[in-house]
Amino acid sequence: MSTFKLTIEYDGTSFNGWQIQANSKSTVQAKIEEALSRIFKKKRVVLVGAGRTDRGVHARGQVAHFRADTNMYLMEIRQALNYNLPREIVVVDVEEESDDFHAQLDAKWKTYSYIVLNRRYPSALERNRCLFFPRKVNICLMKREALELVGKKDFSSFANTDRSRSGHAVRTLKEFDVRKKGDFIVFNVKADGFLYKMVRNMVGTILEIGAGRFPPGSIRKMLKSRDRRCAGVAVAPQGLYLEKVEY
Amino acid sequence: MSTFKLTIEYDGTSFNGWQIQANSKSTVQAKIEEALSRIFKKKRVVLVGAGRTDRGVHARGQVAHFRADTNMYLMEIRQALNYNLPREIVVVDVEEESDDFHAQLDAKWKTYSYIVLNRRYPSALERNRCLFFPRKVNICLMKREALELVGKKDFSSFANTDRSRSGHAVRTLKEFDVRKKGDFIVFNVKADGFLYKMVRNMVGTILEIGAGRFPPGSIRKMLKSRDRRCAGVAVAPQGLYLEKVEY
Repeated sequence: MSTFKLTIEYDGTSFNGWQIQANSKSTVQAKIEEALSRIFKKKRVVLVGAGRTDRGVHARGQVAHFRADTNMYLMEIRQALNYNLPREIVVVDVEEESDDFHAQLDAKWKTYSYIVLNRRYPSALERNRCLFFPRKVNICLMKREALELVGKKDFSSFANTDRSRSGHAVRTLKEFDVRKKGDFIVFNVKADGFLYKMVRNMVGTILEIGAGRFPPGSIRKMLKSRDRRCAGVAVAPQGLYLEKVEY
Repeated sequence: MSTFKLTIEYDGTSFNGWQIQANSKSTVQAKIEEALSRIFKKKRVVLVGAGRTDRGVHARGQVAHFRADTNMYLMEIRQALNYNLPREIVVVDVEEESDDFHAQLDAKWKTYSYIVLNRRYPSALERNRCLFFPRKVNICLMKREALELVGKKDFSSFANTDRSRSGHAVRTLKEFDVRKKGDFIVFNVKADGFLYKMVRNMVGTILEIGAGRFPPGSIRKMLKSRDRRCAGVAVAPQGLYLEKVEY
């Protein structure tokens, strides 16, 4: 048996997220497991992802592992997978790993990006690839507030589950970059892990600060409060991309 | 009555092209005319486009005009249109023009782009936005061959209809730029007009030269032949974008 690591790109628009669900066959994990079981002629090949992504969220660099007994070349596995997968899912890379490799447990850093279209009218071509946010925003202020999130902190205020007890919500955020790119605003966040809806809650809050709904300095106060109700609302899933998982 | 000029972005994936057809309600022109007739409470408001685009072809800067009796502000018209249109079509701009303005007859220059993904595996996110072409190509050679197409020439060899008699296929091509952008190859073509499938035929031929199917110098010979059968095949529609129409 060998262990294989997949790097996966997908368009989350038409899937019910990454994770296999009892009531839906249309998840990314399910589609790839189906393809794997067809290729390796097994009843089930278990695929373990680095992390879940919600319905509508995209990935350019999701990582997952599976185990199989095969003498196919790595590039043959990639080709066979892409041949058997719907066009919305593409395996970008296949590597062989040591037997103890675990896509979820060994992940050291994850990077997400979030794309906002900031102009007066929406985009036809990018409609499922970004959030349309027509209000004027102060980018400098947003950059400054985003930096307040960098470091080892308790992110309870930005998590949609109650992990606020005894440090369960502590994560190390290494980078939170906000950049203007034409009509778009691009957020890049890198951390050792993310709580449920954490990226979308942080981006939503920073956008609201940029648009003047919260005053400058709000992030610091929100972090301190450790109360989800103090921060802003989550932005929609279609602007979110899992970019990279580092080991 | 006033004359209005629309600049339109659309995702051609789910439409039967621009032009209204007897047997299909799902064309871009039909969708916008429907929205206009709803907004102006008329049985039909005729919309004249700068040019047709085929099924699957996109636009960032299609132009069209219509006439209406209204005292709505231009930005109100844009908002009302975008509110009444499917998300695959977005009106980017509305301007008022002189009464004799004609979107098709007055067009001086049109610019199209064509996007090719040139790597070993396809893209999930860009699958309806580019042509997947995994073969290795010589970009320098492609640039050089593309330049052979620039100028006032007879483009019969690159047109899918017989206009070769008495100079009906003569067009002035002002620019044909080929650039590598990461894994993508971007073609930009500007001319005073295009024959049917001309851009896709030219791009297809240049790609085949780049991949070694035709020898260097082929473009010059093909132009001279004025015979469609001498040139390469048309590339798929989903990589093509009507970028701009100039007046």
